Amino acid sequence: MVAASASLDTLCINSIRMLAVDAVNKSNSGHPGLPMGCAPMGYALWDKFLHHNPKNPTWFNRDRFVLSAGHGCMLLYALLHLTGYDSVSIEDIKEFRQWGSRTPGHPETFETAGVEVTAGPLGAGISNAVGLAIAEAHLAAKFNKPDSKIVDHFTYVIMGDGCNQEGVSSEACSLAGHLKLGKLIALYDDNQITIDGRTDVSFTEDVLKRYEAYGWHVQHVPNGNTDIDGIAKAIEAAKQITDKPSLIKISTTIGFGSPNKSDTAGVHGAPLGEEEANLTRKQLGWEYEPFEIPKEAYDQYRQAIAKGEKLESEWNQLLKNYRNQYPSESAEFERMLRGELPNGWDKDLPTYTSNDKGLATRKHSQICLGALGPNLTELIGGSADLTHSNYTDIQGESGSFQPHSPEKRYLHFGVREHAMAAILNGIAYHNSGLIPYGGTFLVFADYMRGSMRLSALSELGVIYVLTHDSIGVGEDGPTHQPIETIPSLRAMPNMLVFRPGDGNETSGAYKLAIENRKRPSALCLSRQGMPNQENSSIEKVAFGGYVLQDCDGTPELILIGTGSELDLCVQAANKLNESGHKVRVISMPCVELFEEQSDLYKEEVLPSSVRKRLVVEAAEAFGWHKYIGLDGDSVCMNRFGASAPGGKCMDEFGFTIENVVAKAKKLIG
Amino acid sequence: MVAASASLDTLCINSIRMLAVDAVNKSNSGHPGLPMGCAPMGYALWDKFLHHNPKNPTWFNRDRFVLSAGHGCMLLYALLHLTGYDSVSIEDIKEFRQWGSRTPGHPETFETAGVEVTAGPLGAGISNAVGLAIAEAHLAAKFNKPDSKIVDHFTYVIMGDGCNQEGVSSEACSLAGHLKLGKLIALYDDNQITIDGRTDVSFTEDVLKRYEAYGWHVQHVPNGNTDIDGIAKAIEAAKQITDKPSLIKISTTIGFGSPNKSDTAGVHGAPLGEEEANLTRKQLGWEYEPFEIPKEAYDQYRQAIAKGEKLESEWNQLLKNYRNQYPSESAEFERMLRGELPNGWDKDLPTYTSNDKGLATRKHSQICLGALGPNLTELIGGSADLTHSNYTDIQGESGSFQPHSPEKRYLHFGVREHAMAAILNGIAYHNSGLIPYGGTFLVFADYMRGSMRLSALSELGVIYVLTHDSIGVGEDGPTHQPIETIPSLRAMPNMLVFRPGDGNETSGAYKLAIENRKRPSALCLSRQGMPNQENSSIEKVAFGGYVLQDCDGTPELILIGTGSELDLCVQAANKLNESGHKVRVISMPCVELFEEQSDLYKEEVLPSSVRKRLVVEAAEAFGWHKYIGLDGDSVCMNRFGASAPGGKCMDEFGFTIENVVAKAKKLIG
Repeated sequence: MVAASASLDTLCINSIRMLAVDAVNKSNSGHPGLPMGCAPMGYALWDKFLHHNPKNPTWFNRDRFVLSAGHGCMLLYALLHLTGYDSVSIEDIKEFRQWGSRTPGHPETFETAGVEVTAGPLGAGISNAVGLAIAEAHLAAKFNKPDSKIVDHFTYVIMGDGCNQEGVSSEACSLAGHLKLGKLIALYDDNQITIDGRTDVSFTEDVLKRYEAYGWHVQHVPNGNTDIDGIAKAIEAAKQITDKPSLIKISTTIGFGSPNKSDTAGVHGAPLGEEEANLTRKQLGWEYEPFEIPKEAYDQYRQAIAKGEKLESEWNQLLKNYRNQYPSESAEFERMLRGELPNGWDKDLPTYTSNDKGLATRKHSQICLGALGPNLTELIGGSADLTHSNYTDIQGESGSFQPHSPEKRYLHFGVREHAMAAILNGIAYHNSGLIPYGGTFLVFADYMRGSMRLSALSELGVIYVLTHDSIGVGEDGPTHQPIETIPSLRAMPNMLVFRPGDGNETSGAYKLAIENRKRPSALCLSRQGMPNQENSSIEKVAFGGYVLQDCDGTPELILIGTGSELDLCVQAANKLNESGHKVRVISMPCVELFEEQSDLYKEEVLPSSVRKRLVVEAAEAFGWHKYIGLDGDSVCMNRFGASAPGGKCMDEFGFTIENVVAKAKKLIG
Repeated sequence: MVAASASLDTLCINSIRMLAVDAVNKSNSGHPGLPMGCAPMGYALWDKFLHHNPKNPTWFNRDRFVLSAGHGCMLLYALLHLTGYDSVSIEDIKEFRQWGSRTPGHPETFETAGVEVTAGPLGAGISNAVGLAIAEAHLAAKFNKPDSKIVDHFTYVIMGDGCNQEGVSSEACSLAGHLKLGKLIALYDDNQITIDGRTDVSFTEDVLKRYEAYGWHVQHVPNGNTDIDGIAKAIEAAKQITDKPSLIKISTTIGFGSPNKSDTAGVHGAPLGEEEANLTRKQLGWEYEPFEIPKEAYDQYRQAIAKGEKLESEWNQLLKNYRNQYPSESAEFERMLRGELPNGWDKDLPTYTSNDKGLATRKHSQICLGALGPNLTELIGGSADLTHSNYTDIQGESGSFQPHSPEKRYLHFGVREHAMAAILNGIAYHNSGLIPYGGTFLVFADYMRGSMRLSALSELGVIYVLTHDSIGVGEDGPTHQPIETIPSLRAMPNMLVFRPGDGNETSGAYKLAIENRKRPSALCLSRQGMPNQENSSIEKVAFGGYVLQDCDGTPELILIGTGSELDLCVQAANKLNESGHKVRVISMPCVELFEEQSDLYKEEVLPSSVRKRLVVEAAEAFGWHKYIGLDGDSVCMNRFGASAPGGKCMDEFGFTIENVVAKAKKLIG
């Protein structure tokens, strides 16, 4: 029954609050404060605005909802449950934060249908949302017709103070303002509390003014605890502003309803406990048992099911008409939605013989992008302001994604690596077949590593084009020369790290990066040129490592090389073989793929009896002992680099035929 | 001779421009555009404002000058040379970007006296400058007396569009505004060009408005190419604003003077070439040969030498008086400037026996900070809004560094990990004996890795307090559970990565982290408790790895453990030894220090004849094969974690006595 004093709105809002209180209490772990404070905005947004279909969480044209303040995930789980998603039953909520549950401690796309982005690392969600909005704007510009807006949805975000303090959101929101992403609407939960206490210990800037400076439309709802109308009016106003993203600052009380803990950091990330939960029940006039939701609230929320079915069926009708009127566009659109690559997408990937002029692999990469571009229209990406160094342009195309040209697929991210990665993730989260890629110098992978990790964790097939991959960078010096970056990426689960050694291997790396839609790829590419090898091929890259050049009989020594050092291995092997030794050369463009091969294959390539193994790679040796063991050796880097011409650096740090031969001979004994 | 039309100011300014043109041309590599555009502001600042002593680049009370746009390093080298620093002779400038030169491709503190911060990765320098200004404000509040302002200098910055796009600068500058760092003055080179072209492809925000939102004082000099007076007046006005940091936007033309390349991206990062250099000479009315500087310009610039000597000698007099009047303060101050630790600084670091209650190492860390606090007043730091999770507070102290209390040493960084690391670097760059530390969750090291790398490269003894170091985090789930983070840090040159296994080892890690003033330390600390070991000690940590528990005779198998898995190794070894096996347990709290031990020591600990080795660490195994080779095994993580109670995660992922024993037995055969 509804308490006499409680309106239906209040009942619905308190349903969220109490589910959060009860779930966190039961698991004795979690963050009740945000769901209790944000319940009104969550309710207003989901009940009155959000286009979605609970019975088909992946319906394409749904509005995207991003809970950027991911620790407040009980808000999202409550909304998913209350509006009727099968992915979050009341039993799932009772299993909050338990092993194998669908309600993990932060929202994870791969665990729970209806979760649009994996959130928790602050600032990431709002930045992903910029990517979602870019994807929507691009697809709308590409596919919509005056009579058929088959791509037409908003991207909504709830973000907190933490999200606004993180630099990645500053980068992404500055770009969103530049791009005038009018269908991006962020609700900023201004609760004045962070873990260290009141925000005024470290965060006193004027957030709205900052967003205004970015070119956003900004509003303030002073009483976000009870003013549902105010919130709804602000969202309605934001929807009307189509040439600017919108930020609505909504002032709330963290832990609203808890008499002793609300408005304190204590309610941010700890259970209320049973006693305070009871007091909260009293204060909110909540007469129900833990995990009990009144029928009136369910009835109200679950109107979303019928509404959602209607929205989807209207859209299906629209799509049907579109299919009839625009068969080729719809074929492409629907293929993309199915996640299928077009026939012949890879047919123009170039192959090379050893007679072909050697190039830098960043140049080969540019040729690959040019070869893929016309056949793979879903490829979309750019560079963090290094287009003409990363060679990330798609040759033959001009123009870029700008407010007046969202149909273009080239993205100028500006000098914003972290936002770039988060936006690429957002484009991938849109799950509409777009294949996002982005370039910067390899060493600056460090700037975006937080989001690269989320690509890997969330199984997003983002392609990172990371050029200038060693001390071969040369004059720019140690701040620009990656040493530990390649191993640091190889250490990351579910990340494919490619370091191709010539043109064929670069083509192969692209082929695999495109095919792997559930794993991100890091393409580590050279600034400097290298020859094409005789026995490399696109196909062999799929093995991760393979015998590039062999000797007669059992090798005395195995040389393992990657990237720009591959040819050095070949030349050293030739010298050694000329002087009567038996040396095999293995090319290892992708350690992760090699690891996945059969034991038989791995034994063929790296016979366990041959313990004299020498790896040559202009990076930290860290990680290579898996193949060289205790008896092998390495020609690698064990310090930061230096500013000098690249060839000079290579020589000084021992990447010479002489040094490789000498180390090999020492091993052979 | 001076061209009739050229004023002395112009001559001085063009000296910078042409040194940049000539050096970049000679090395055929580099960035002439910024020095040519920023020469007027560089000249105005250095000639009229900057307090420094070219003959003693490390004079303590100098103003700090940070070239945040580090690629424009020829501006800095030109200024150092022209004002008479011995570190940059004209011969050094001719060796720009060559092997072993003192003029590398980006400014590096460890190569060139007079360079205050290593710059190049954009956004880092301005963020370091916030740290420099914090250091100044803190020391001033701590040591100055009404009659003796022995700490009293400005921090000046030149930053570009790239610096303003990077998120790290947004974080740091928001905090700088909050902290009202009135002696921080940034000159923003607004040249409207980035590498991808005009800034309007990606960067159209209102930068001044944004800084105003942060609480900065802002000004605009519309003609930065020739309006020296305007620049000087703006700097003068900024100096008068003592309760806000200042941003002066100075609109310039990149590559000013080059008739065909100025105001284009082409002049950003490529030599002008001989022909364009000649045309530039003509346009600027520059009648001198390459690397020739007219005497009038030298005479003007080198007044800095006499001025600097006077400034320093006045300060020396001030210090002398201070020494007489405030002997204990001056003793502390001067000790700090000498970089000496105080006597007995480590005397209260706790030691434990196995009877002492086990704690989480983050808790041991808090105890260490509390034990160091009173004896090591130069310890300064805080947390990126996780004080009560990282336990980074210094127990017994209250209050934090705020606008009204800069004498306090606790820093609330807000949810700004990257800025935290950059600010810690800045405090270290101040080189005044302060020992900076900062905490966040280990997994968020990814957010600040760009600046952690600069700690390592620039030899800064920053202490990173990284708690919640494994799946032991539990319910927060995979976004918060580091898997690859520890190996990724171990891969970094010059970074000490500690993962202590109990209380003694945590004390030992602190001792070494404090002592290593030229190497940063990453302390990886558990959320969850673990027992104190019988044979651990502070001293043994210095060996990096040591025999914690041995068997009789030659071991059949060696167990290697760290952190929270150390006790698991001990318990597994006990089981195995009970069942008649011979198993040694090695504790390896710091791989890097173990690597530095003698071959003899390493052989004693890890005899090369014992190939059956099992490492147990709740992190990616990546990197451990250096010790387990091809014949060992690991109980490690090879996937991302999961949301569940920490103990449950540990069990499910195989961190149990049973599993370790089983794997060990399999190895023993």
